[in-house]
Amino acid sequence: MFKAIVSAATLRDALDSVSVLVDECKIRLNEESLSIRAVDPANVGMVDLTLDAAAFESYEAHGGVIGVNLSRLEEVAGMAGAGDLIHLTLDEETRKLNIRIDGLSYTLALIDPDSIRQEPDIPDLDLAANIVLEGTHLDRGIKAADMVSDHIRLRVDGAEETFHIEAEGDTDDVDLSLPPADLISIEAGAADSLFSLDYLKDMNKAIPTDAEVTVELGEEFPVKLHYQIAEGMGTITYMLAPRIQSD
Amino acid sequence: MFKAIVSAATLRDALDSVSVLVDECKIRLNEESLSIRAVDPANVGMVDLTLDAAAFESYEAHGGVIGVNLSRLEEVAGMAGAGDLIHLTLDEETRKLNIRIDGLSYTLALIDPDSIRQEPDIPDLDLAANIVLEGTHLDRGIKAADMVSDHIRLRVDGAEETFHIEAEGDTDDVDLSLPPADLISIEAGAADSLFSLDYLKDMNKAIPTDAEVTVELGEEFPVKLHYQIAEGMGTITYMLAPRIQSD
Amino acid sequence: MFKAIVSAATLRDALDSVSVLVDECKIRLNEESLSIRAVDPANVGMVDLTLDAAAFESYEAHGGVIGVNLSRLEEVAGMAGAGDLIHLTLDEETRKLNIRIDGLSYTLALIDPDSIRQEPDIPDLDLAANIVLEGTHLDRGIKAADMVSDHIRLRVDGAEETFHIEAEGDTDDVDLSLPPADLISIEAGAADSLFSLDYLKDMNKAIPTDAEVTVELGEEFPVKLHYQIAEGMGTITYMLAPRIQSD
Repeated sequence: MFKAIVSAATLRDALDSVSVLVDECKIRLNEESLSIRAVDPANVGMVDLTLDAAAFESYEAHGGVIGVNLSRLEEVAGMAGAGDLIHLTLDEETRKLNIRIDGLSYTLALIDPDSIRQEPDIPDLDLAANIVLEGTHLDRGIKAADMVSDHIRLRVDGAEETFHIEAEGDTDDVDLSLPPADLISIEAGAADSLFSLDYLKDMNKAIPTDAEVTVELGEEFPVKLHYQIAEGMGTITYMLAPRIQSD
Repeated sequence: MFKAIVSAATLRDALDSVSVLVDECKIRLNEESLSIRAVDPANVGMVDLTLDAAAFESYEAHGGVIGVNLSRLEEVAGMAGAGDLIHLTLDEETRKLNIRIDGLSYTLALIDPDSIRQEPDIPDLDLAANIVLEGTHLDRGIKAADMVSDHIRLRVDGAEETFHIEAEGDTDDVDLSLPPADLISIEAGAADSLFSLDYLKDMNKAIPTDAEVTVELGEEFPVKLHYQIAEGMGTITYMLAPRIQSD
Repeated sequence: MFKAIVSAATLRDALDSVSVLVDECKIRLNEESLSIRAVDPANVGMVDLTLDAAAFESYEAHGGVIGVNLSRLEEVAGMAGAGDLIHLTLDEETRKLNIRIDGLSYTLALIDPDSIRQEPDIPDLDLAANIVLEGTHLDRGIKAADMVSDHIRLRVDGAEETFHIEAEGDTDDVDLSLPPADLISIEAGAADSLFSLDYLKDMNKAIPTDAEVTVELGEEFPVKLHYQIAEGMGTITYMLAPRIQSD
């Protein structure tokens, strides 16, 4: 049993965070929250989304898992105006999700959850550095890196408590240097890792530029990015595996 | 003899309504109005446009027919700002149309009207249902249907006096239900017909979202759509042939 | 030695004026000004740009020439917001240009100036007509000409002191007629030349629509276009070779 009403903006922010990594996903309809965990086909990027019942106008669920085609669901949510409410009702018998927006009723065929990639375990990692910054700064660093390379280096200069977003191209280099004054907070620690830029670009697409993004970073370790949606009632965690630094 | 001055907005609205169906058309330069009738090459969609002399700043015509390349004429009209006036003058000798916009003079070669498809007769039909709605609602229904199918079903629920825009896809279904409160008016009657979505999408492109659209609908019969431009001094009628309902 | 600070808007206006003609260029770092002269590979269009030291927030140069990839430099300048300042510093040893925008540091590899096409001499020409008009009028004439032809004719009607931008297509013709009332000034004289529209379109892309453009025109002679950027502290001259008029 699942029945919920949610603002179009909240549903779209939630779906966007997952759809940048995968086309299909399992949605867990827990009593206290809706949650999604997914990993991209290459096992490089993971996402963990939790949307609390309080993020909905109304929410009723008694457990269970559904499988959905994300781009299709996003397209339907895209029919709603920014202020519209979206009504979601699961028909247990037909295994279809009814989506109602004003007078518009859309009946979405679900996907057998067993046919969808298994949900990943997102490991607890003890990462030495913790940086909190605005999405707009992360966005700037990623765009700059993209001019010269398809890899991006995230690094903390412990002495200066400065977060660096860097890239080395064949001829040109880029370094966005973010001192404490440009950060919301920083706990400096040994942190220097290289990542595939494509994945970070995809994750960045979903992160609102005005979001507070928490970056957990280590030495040649995965990076974790956390941000919130729906006024804090939705939380998203990305984890991205590192590339081996060749130099 | 033909000489007219018209606002860029009115000329563009008029041309758009025809160019969504055909590339070339005959324009009848009657004394009281300018009119165009055209049918697409597959004989599925027709348009009938009348622009009264009163829709022009000035209008002088003594009958006659000219053939025009619509996309070319639209491109020229596109050179005008929204508030600009467009001066049209037919040169009978050279069979060219002079189009003047401010200091810009464009000389358009006309097409021999005999080389253009014959104008269709748009039949009088006795259609049981008559629905008047805002263009924005029609637009919403067409966009929704387009997510699941390349056919669209227009239907009136007589008991509830509700107009339905529906589509059935291979797995998903859509139903935009418009009760009397969402309509400007409805005369319910036996009305349920299926149409090619491509044609209706094309017609919808030309219909302003704030237009009042009158829909005349029957049982497996063509649909007629009427709307006005130029503050009521221009009227457009589309007629679209039905598809046979397979179910 | 070269060290300068310049507003993003000024740098972008300057680079745009050159990049419409060539991909790489030499930049002369004179004591009093930065200057660029370039000619397109077909020797048809030339540009001469001078940006006075006063156009910079700060400027220090002791002569010398650097070679740059323009599209790359424009891409980096594009990372700056409209109000941002761009810091340029030449590293003489590595022959790299450091570009700093806020906390972002970009290290641009330079090109050996000897590998870049030689700078053209832009000849003094005694052109009979001199027309000053707003960029927006030139833009309109070029867009209109582009509808019918890939050549454009610039012509002065001496008797009426009117500047004509014309094009003859296979079937259609265009004539934008600009009488003294639509011009900032005109010195009429024998002037009638035909040009390749592609080049003029490219130059026009760089000319701001609110710029005052001075057109020097003769009889089957090159045309010169002058305009200013950076509140008069930057001047740009284009010269375009004529096409032989066949009629």
